[in-house]
Amino acid sequence: MIEFQVIKKSNKSLARLGILKTSHGEIETPTLVPVATQAVIKTLTSEEVLETKTQILISNTFHLHLKPGEDFIRKSGGLHKFMNWRKPIMTDSGGFQVFSLGFGHDLNVGKLLKYFPGKNHQIIEHGKQPKRLKITDDGVIFKSPIDGKELFIGPKKSIDIQKKLGADIIFAFDECTAPLCSYDYAKKALKRTHNWAKICVESMRGNKKQSLFGIIQGSRFKDLREEGADFINSLDFAGFGIGGDLGEDKRQMKEVVGWAVSRLQVSKPRHLLGIGYLEDIENIIKWGIDTFDCTVPTHYARRGIAFTGAGKINFNKTLLLKSKISLDKNCSCFVCKNYKRNYIAHLIRAKEITGMKLLTFHNLYYFNNFVEKIREKIKSGKL
Amino acid sequence: MIEFQVIKKSNKSLARLGILKTSHGEIETPTLVPVATQAVIKTLTSEEVLETKTQILISNTFHLHLKPGEDFIRKSGGLHKFMNWRKPIMTDSGGFQVFSLGFGHDLNVGKLLKYFPGKNHQIIEHGKQPKRLKITDDGVIFKSPIDGKELFIGPKKSIDIQKKLGADIIFAFDECTAPLCSYDYAKKALKRTHNWAKICVESMRGNKKQSLFGIIQGSRFKDLREEGADFINSLDFAGFGIGGDLGEDKRQMKEVVGWAVSRLQVSKPRHLLGIGYLEDIENIIKWGIDTFDCTVPTHYARRGIAFTGAGKINFNKTLLLKSKISLDKNCSCFVCKNYKRNYIAHLIRAKEITGMKLLTFHNLYYFNNFVEKIREKIKSGKL
Repeated sequence: MIEFQVIKKSNKSLARLGILKTSHGEIETPTLVPVATQAVIKTLTSEEVLETKTQILISNTFHLHLKPGEDFIRKSGGLHKFMNWRKPIMTDSGGFQVFSLGFGHDLNVGKLLKYFPGKNHQIIEHGKQPKRLKITDDGVIFKSPIDGKELFIGPKKSIDIQKKLGADIIFAFDECTAPLCSYDYAKKALKRTHNWAKICVESMRGNKKQSLFGIIQGSRFKDLREEGADFINSLDFAGFGIGGDLGEDKRQMKEVVGWAVSRLQVSKPRHLLGIGYLEDIENIIKWGIDTFDCTVPTHYARRGIAFTGAGKINFNKTLLLKSKISLDKNCSCFVCKNYKRNYIAHLIRAKEITGMKLLTFHNLYYFNNFVEKIREKIKSGKL
Repeated sequence: MIEFQVIKKSNKSLARLGILKTSHGEIETPTLVPVATQAVIKTLTSEEVLETKTQILISNTFHLHLKPGEDFIRKSGGLHKFMNWRKPIMTDSGGFQVFSLGFGHDLNVGKLLKYFPGKNHQIIEHGKQPKRLKITDDGVIFKSPIDGKELFIGPKKSIDIQKKLGADIIFAFDECTAPLCSYDYAKKALKRTHNWAKICVESMRGNKKQSLFGIIQGSRFKDLREEGADFINSLDFAGFGIGGDLGEDKRQMKEVVGWAVSRLQVSKPRHLLGIGYLEDIENIIKWGIDTFDCTVPTHYARRGIAFTGAGKINFNKTLLLKSKISLDKNCSCFVCKNYKRNYIAHLIRAKEITGMKLLTFHNLYYFNNFVEKIREKIKSGKL
């Protein structure tokens, strides 16, 4: 079970400094939660991840259910032992995949709409189903991408899988809506999410090892988000996730997060699911978010993009072959201490795995360091 | 410049223990030379390679000429600085690519023929050219695999490139013949290789930093191999490479290596190019080989195969997901100390880069450790 303690509140924003205690150690919040989809941060070992100042990871219930299957992980002693990671772990519930493999895939949209004029975004009306999934009041039916076999995940199943995976913090199963859903669709989906939330809480009775977070849905609609927050807040959850679509743009994202956060018990931790571009991080912390997961540092790294104090660097460019300076002169990570830009550019351009790995290491370190500095700002009353 | 000292000879075989001194430190021979084709051991950092007990690397002149180009590497301070590797480095001459992109590719054969009955292996007669290269008395004309531009590498060009790369040990440019060449073809190719050898020696005059090894060719023909050994032995080389095809099978490989080694000055180091299956290593050392490069440990790792004291393990197999023991119980490498077979199997099956990296680390450590034990056997008079 977790314990959460707010140790300092900003008097200029909703930002707060906290300590999250788990049976795998304490972590300081706010913190980034790097994404170890398949029980691994792509390209790194668990020991390397630790060196990037990472405090906690999130793994993916849907992916691990498909491969290797939760029973293998349970038999190996759970995720921590399986991947040799001794710090805390979260698992998401699989709800996000209902979106990303469903309407997210069909309409090619993310959690923020980023509307482009001229592009015909069709609104998802109530009753419509995505092409590759079937969403019912009981759960989601989908075809295994591995062998095409029909599979089902619902609230009880999701908790069963997550129990076997054995993360410290697990999430209730939800329907993560697309930013193009109609009000009617969002309302029905919210009702489903709430029924599932109750089943998840029920399924957790007697589980003293793990802590369950409920997920607030409601799309970009104020009354639905507030209803979502109030309902999830009323159940026996150890913390909250804010999920689903967050509207059209970052202005709307701020509103949506605000509607939810304002109605939640302040004593419980708040996780923002799947958000964390570098430029968003300080903002979401100011809006009262304690933890957030996102694939930006790791995903960008594998495409050859590094984050530095002077902006992003694209290592696919020939020009960088001439650069004999370190990746980021103000960074003290292993990569910046040992390698120059010219070598990293060569590795990325030559499609060498080691290049992706060096950038993954640096980016994670950079992001974690970035958040560490924000924690220091909160400590010293500067945020 | 290198210095080589034989410190002990076996009295049961031609095996010998040596010290190879370079301006980047001393190494003990016999030793494996892992292949860092594009100035990197695929999946690892230079620091990790060091932890695998690797003493010396070999990089590829042909590949580095194409990407990033030798001028970039020279301007960055040479290969050692470029890749942050402080120990010795070899570069091959590009001669092997003449084979692998030429007849090796056309006929789908390696350096050992491994004849399969029923397969129609056409003998390469004198005058025949491979499909994708043109071999002339001056050098080799080929199309860049990057942009299709016509490129040329000859003996002088190869040395020029290798000077800019700055390895401690560099190789003369040669024509590496296929095991299907006719006697006539091998004879003409040998003559070319010898003309090129003289040009390479000439091009190295005044170079006090690097040491040049000559390559003995002559295919599977006794008189040609002996002629090759005598000729290369007569020139001003710091050491020898035994290259080209080594016949049909391992019995013939032993003969071919023997014909060459028997005629070489005993005071100079002997490198066997591109050979080193685990089961071959003790043999080639007994035949008098001091160093040998091969991609087996790294290449097999990326395909999910690990080498252990109990044989090869294929981590693509589902069965291994159940195995809670370490990769090799007698190995003390980082991977065997920290990870179990079930996790490695999951990573390999899920196509995670980290899986390839863990196996690359282990395999290199395993091979280096294997050769270290052979050195100990020579020391104690047991080989």
